[in-house]
Amino acid sequence: METQPADPNFEAKVRDSFARQGAMATVGARLARVAHGEVEIEIDNLPAVRQQHGFVHGGVVGMIADSAGGYAGFSTMPPGSTVLTVEYKMNFLNPAAGARIAARGRVVKTGRTLVVCAVDVVSIDGGRERPCATMLQTLMAVAGKPDAPPA
Amino acid sequence: METQPADPNFEAKVRDSFARQGAMATVGARLARVAHGEVEIEIDNLPAVRQQHGFVHGGVVGMIADSAGGYAGFSTMPPGSTVLTVEYKMNFLNPAAGARIAARGRVVKTGRTLVVCAVDVVSIDGGRERPCATMLQTLMAVAGKPDAPPA
Amino acid sequence: METQPADPNFEAKVRDSFARQGAMATVGARLARVAHGEVEIEIDNLPAVRQQHGFVHGGVVGMIADSAGGYAGFSTMPPGSTVLTVEYKMNFLNPAAGARIAARGRVVKTGRTLVVCAVDVVSIDGGRERPCATMLQTLMAVAGKPDAPPA
Amino acid sequence: METQPADPNFEAKVRDSFARQGAMATVGARLARVAHGEVEIEIDNLPAVRQQHGFVHGGVVGMIADSAGGYAGFSTMPPGSTVLTVEYKMNFLNPAAGARIAARGRVVKTGRTLVVCAVDVVSIDGGRERPCATMLQTLMAVAGKPDAPPA
Repeated sequence: METQPADPNFEAKVRDSFARQGAMATVGARLARVAHGEVEIEIDNLPAVRQQHGFVHGGVVGMIADSAGGYAGFSTMPPGSTVLTVEYKMNFLNPAAGARIAARGRVVKTGRTLVVCAVDVVSIDGGRERPCATMLQTLMAVAGKPDAPPA
Repeated sequence: METQPADPNFEAKVRDSFARQGAMATVGARLARVAHGEVEIEIDNLPAVRQQHGFVHGGVVGMIADSAGGYAGFSTMPPGSTVLTVEYKMNFLNPAAGARIAARGRVVKTGRTLVVCAVDVVSIDGGRERPCATMLQTLMAVAGKPDAPPA
Repeated sequence: METQPADPNFEAKVRDSFARQGAMATVGARLARVAHGEVEIEIDNLPAVRQQHGFVHGGVVGMIADSAGGYAGFSTMPPGSTVLTVEYKMNFLNPAAGARIAARGRVVKTGRTLVVCAVDVVSIDGGRERPCATMLQTLMAVAGKPDAPPA
Repeated sequence: METQPADPNFEAKVRDSFARQGAMATVGARLARVAHGEVEIEIDNLPAVRQQHGFVHGGVVGMIADSAGGYAGFSTMPPGSTVLTVEYKMNFLNPAAGARIAARGRVVKTGRTLVVCAVDVVSIDGGRERPCATMLQTLMAVAGKPDAPPA
């Protein structure tokens, strides 16, 4: 990864894009941290995001992990490009219990077209953290395409 | 996969378990089909489940795919056991556009402890289907554990 | 996938490239079939490719599966480009026993830059086939780069 | 992961098992380091393990990574059990160039049945290291089965 951001405006563009994701609001996800190549997304463990055992649904864990990695990668991309998830793989390590779930994405490798990210998901309860899931993800930078739907 | 279901009551147990997943209701997911070793889950492409480009969020696609595979596997498990997702890997093939998204899970291999499933996700518009994503997933059957949270 | 090959010379280029892979000769791999978007690679189950239980080593299974998918993708790429494996994920379904192991790669989706392939690996003994592993793989077409090392 | 090895004899059992893998000898792999929950495997970049561009074949990289993770997991398992690879996913980050390739596996999570490992592969040239690939892997401990083929 380059030390200098390719887009000095990276934080604003990540926050703007996140704000346009209806799905993130639907599951109550918050953008907890945006740095160059690192993004953290959090949710509270509420009934609306649970599975049948009372833990946060693995799909919701995957959702915030996918977005945390995707925005970590997007923060390193040049202005005027958008980001697509090519694929990801996720291992579930412990139930997503606890009051809060945080997904922390970081860039592992940036190429001209592809960016590889890793995401660690932890459950947080009373200041104690426990590993919950880990993701390996491939993103693509798509140049000349704005990061927004047609008006 | 065995031809005979290990649990003759498999359809009811899948439907009961799905009904207890708050997260599925939150994204508007429906159980479209339950067969032995095959489950289909659908959602409508509504603003509440979209990302910043106006397509269904990849995380939501992952959510219904994870559940479709998980319940396909669960349908083959003996009574008195529950299902956990060990891991999955997902490739996104085309944007989740169209009016409706359907995730079709099927069992690839059942072992004593582990079940491997494949899930195809398609977008459906005006009766026309287009591949959207494909998932390869590993599940674990956990014996002696009811498929429900403590009351 | 396009019905017409982007490179009418696809079979010769796949066979030439395969012949230059020292690693394939080292494990005794053969190119059993080359079609547009489909490639099959075989090995015999000999001591030189086994692991500690007497089956073919999972890494060797991965090797021929990676190549079968890679060449299936390469067969659909235009002249003057080469192929790189971006990533793959593999599930092992049954031990790689039997006299012969065959990896059958096929293209799932072709894009301008990326190609997604699926590979099924079977063990073959006395005319009977058994699923051995399944792979999901992402490839990249690299234009303007010959498929050979500098002389 | 437990701090105390479940098998005090873990190093000898890993070395014995490795020595029985014909496939490792075939590609010239060496066991460079065995610790509790961490194993490193190395190969030299020789023509016999190369692909058509002159780099080490991705399949061989996968082979030593699979084994490094597998033995890292095996080192934490109790006596009298053996290890199976359930699945893995691998991202290729940079060409496997350089004089030597090292795969470093480490345990991420141990459960009663399943162990999750991560493996980093680097290429080494003149004392300089470069990331080459990264793997996320799921293993299964199989109890009551010796780690050797029938005599």
